[in-house]
Amino acid sequence: MTAVSHPLIFASRVKGTPVKNRDGETLGHVDDLSIDKISGEVRYALMSFGGFLGIGERLHPVPWSVLDYDTEQGGYVVPLTKAQLLAAPSLDQAQLETLGAGETWRSEIADYYATYGGGLPMGRL
Amino acid sequence: MTAVSHPLIFASRVKGTPVKNRDGETLGHVDDLSIDKISGEVRYALMSFGGFLGIGERLHPVPWSVLDYDTEQGGYVVPLTKAQLLAAPSLDQAQLETLGAGETWRSEIADYYATYGGGLPMGRL
Repeated sequence: MTAVSHPLIFASRVKGTPVKNRDGETLGHVDDLSIDKISGEVRYALMSFGGFLGIGERLHPVPWSVLDYDTEQGGYVVPLTKAQLLAAPSLDQAQLETLGAGETWRSEIADYYATYGGGLPMGRL
Repeated sequence: MTAVSHPLIFASRVKGTPVKNRDGETLGHVDDLSIDKISGEVRYALMSFGGFLGIGERLHPVPWSVLDYDTEQGGYVVPLTKAQLLAAPSLDQAQLETLGAGETWRSEIADYYATYGGGLPMGRL
């Protein structure tokens, strides 16, 4: 992770933050965060590739550990291509309502992002 | 912490969630969350006692570990009185802009909430 002078951010300001690749190209933006109620850990950034969430749009939960905040870029940098992000597990509005209810999709996401630092820590589902 | 069937919440839905005392009285609401950019941990709920943030209003950063989400109450329960919360360290708009820049206020908050489970973990400022 990049060292930052201001370590805290407001949840309300994360929405709309660009997600870029390592070449500085914008791939999409963060639409929302998914937070573990008990531990208070941000588990996923819900990434959008279009405008703000519209009818039929899907959100892609990207494990927080995959995102690297870059102050110079003013956004999050990911070590994936747009095609790889688009092919990752995604959720529509109805599925978002039940986000976290099942564990199957969570291990699917962890498997998908495992090589990019997004796997599940040992002993935690 | 109360067991919940749905462990994940959206950051966007936290705003406006009531904060109650143990008698079920609403003391205020959560206006925003302050998140550590690097670790992805929610450090503080920024609590408001009035309407949504208006001119002159101050926000009170309450350590996340002090808040206990109660599904039956539909809100966070804190083991403090309204007077205790109001007397806690608070920030105005200008100070919010620099939230996290200094460490002094963070140890002040940790000291204030230490007996309610909001102290700083060993080795972390």
